[in-house]
Amino acid sequence: MKDIQKLTPKEIRNLIRKGKWDKPTAGLAMGYAQANLVILPQKYAFDFLLFCQRNSKPCPLLEVLEPGEFRTKYLSSDADIRTDIPRYNIYRKGKLQNTVKEIKSFWEPDFVSFLLGCSFSFEEAMLRSNIPVRHIEEKKNVPMFITHIPCKRAGVFHGPMVVTMRPILPDQVTRAVQITSRYALVHGAPIHIGDPSAIGIRDLRKPDFGDPVTIKKGEIPVFWACGVTPQAVVMKAKPDLCITHTPGHMFISDLLNEELAIF
Amino acid sequence: MKDIQKLTPKEIRNLIRKGKWDKPTAGLAMGYAQANLVILPQKYAFDFLLFCQRNSKPCPLLEVLEPGEFRTKYLSSDADIRTDIPRYNIYRKGKLQNTVKEIKSFWEPDFVSFLLGCSFSFEEAMLRSNIPVRHIEEKKNVPMFITHIPCKRAGVFHGPMVVTMRPILPDQVTRAVQITSRYALVHGAPIHIGDPSAIGIRDLRKPDFGDPVTIKKGEIPVFWACGVTPQAVVMKAKPDLCITHTPGHMFISDLLNEELAIF
Repeated sequence: MKDIQKLTPKEIRNLIRKGKWDKPTAGLAMGYAQANLVILPQKYAFDFLLFCQRNSKPCPLLEVLEPGEFRTKYLSSDADIRTDIPRYNIYRKGKLQNTVKEIKSFWEPDFVSFLLGCSFSFEEAMLRSNIPVRHIEEKKNVPMFITHIPCKRAGVFHGPMVVTMRPILPDQVTRAVQITSRYALVHGAPIHIGDPSAIGIRDLRKPDFGDPVTIKKGEIPVFWACGVTPQAVVMKAKPDLCITHTPGHMFISDLLNEELAIF
Repeated sequence: MKDIQKLTPKEIRNLIRKGKWDKPTAGLAMGYAQANLVILPQKYAFDFLLFCQRNSKPCPLLEVLEPGEFRTKYLSSDADIRTDIPRYNIYRKGKLQNTVKEIKSFWEPDFVSFLLGCSFSFEEAMLRSNIPVRHIEEKKNVPMFITHIPCKRAGVFHGPMVVTMRPILPDQVTRAVQITSRYALVHGAPIHIGDPSAIGIRDLRKPDFGDPVTIKKGEIPVFWACGVTPQAVVMKAKPDLCITHTPGHMFISDLLNEELAIF
């Protein structure tokens, strides 16, 4: 097999479709946008679409497929959402039931698929600008925290915003804001800079999801809205059925991160 | 009556609610965002929300109300969408049936209200930066053109993008792009600069809607996505019923234009 990291998005999706890659996608197809997946039955679709419209920082929609549709149109012209993601989580009534490599046998004609932006896109831009991203340096998952900032409710969907944290040196905070502002479709600018307690976070050493990372002397914790928010909100609403990607096992699109930048 | 132009958004909405103002809202409550209104029965709501998500430049959603809800929550905490707009157009099967000053007697519990951003917001920013806006100088309606750029279809909704045109001096085009880029929720950056025929416009002197404006020697026509697009698309889909604001008779929100700027 050719070095996986050198493959195009299409080549990687083909491997995944054939069941030959079921691992996380971080570091693959560098430069191309990766996306979170949420699939819900149609009866929840308007409420969830409205939730994303009202909470676009944690829930930046890249593409929504029509009911029953499993082929993407805009993120890729040849992808099948049922097979082209390395691993899927299947939830019933908010509880994880199983993890599978494809969902063809679970597919129903009323399924609506939502693809949401992911912070991989802006992290790449930060690294290009020589702003270190600590969890990448330390080969960890990004630390994620449940805040006391409420999302705007929509129908059955509500809950607190989840954020990611990256420690940044004071002289690079402005640049980090500028860089990530360009990526409004992949969480965009920070939602908070500094004092964690101001947004309801007690201890930066104890993230609710992901791993703790080193915060060096003088570094300021900077917080971005996180794509785990919509998943947490959906689990809380306990829909009959919900299928998501398994965290870290993302959809790899044909869209360049730069194409997502808004200016 | 106090000079209408000095009234706050809340005071103007109160006048409108009492039937004391049924004229256009241009120039009122300067600094505050005004919004386009589209009301559709719930059976069309998911498709239209999806259409707006797929076509955010012509259809920048500022607020979507839950089915049956007529009070705004985010654009204002005390507005009633049934009474607080100076004039409404009522369409049945895509045909204008009548124009009314309030829609309480037409209201149905399955109505979904969509409020969309309007270019008044970025025109104010252009004027503040000494970029002339010709149709304002000439006291006309902005010229609007149907292009050959197709919108991304969603369910029953499809059609070409409608654009507005403002002639700009070459040395101010870059600045105009920069300024309007900040206002992604109110159409944002231009979708085309220069040659009208490249986007299917035959004659700048013959706009499809609005008025022709003077284009001075050396000026470049610059085109922005227009809020008439969603209305044209809805009329084409011929829903049983659709209520919109009467063009120019907008919803005046409590949100400052500056609050809509994305950076």
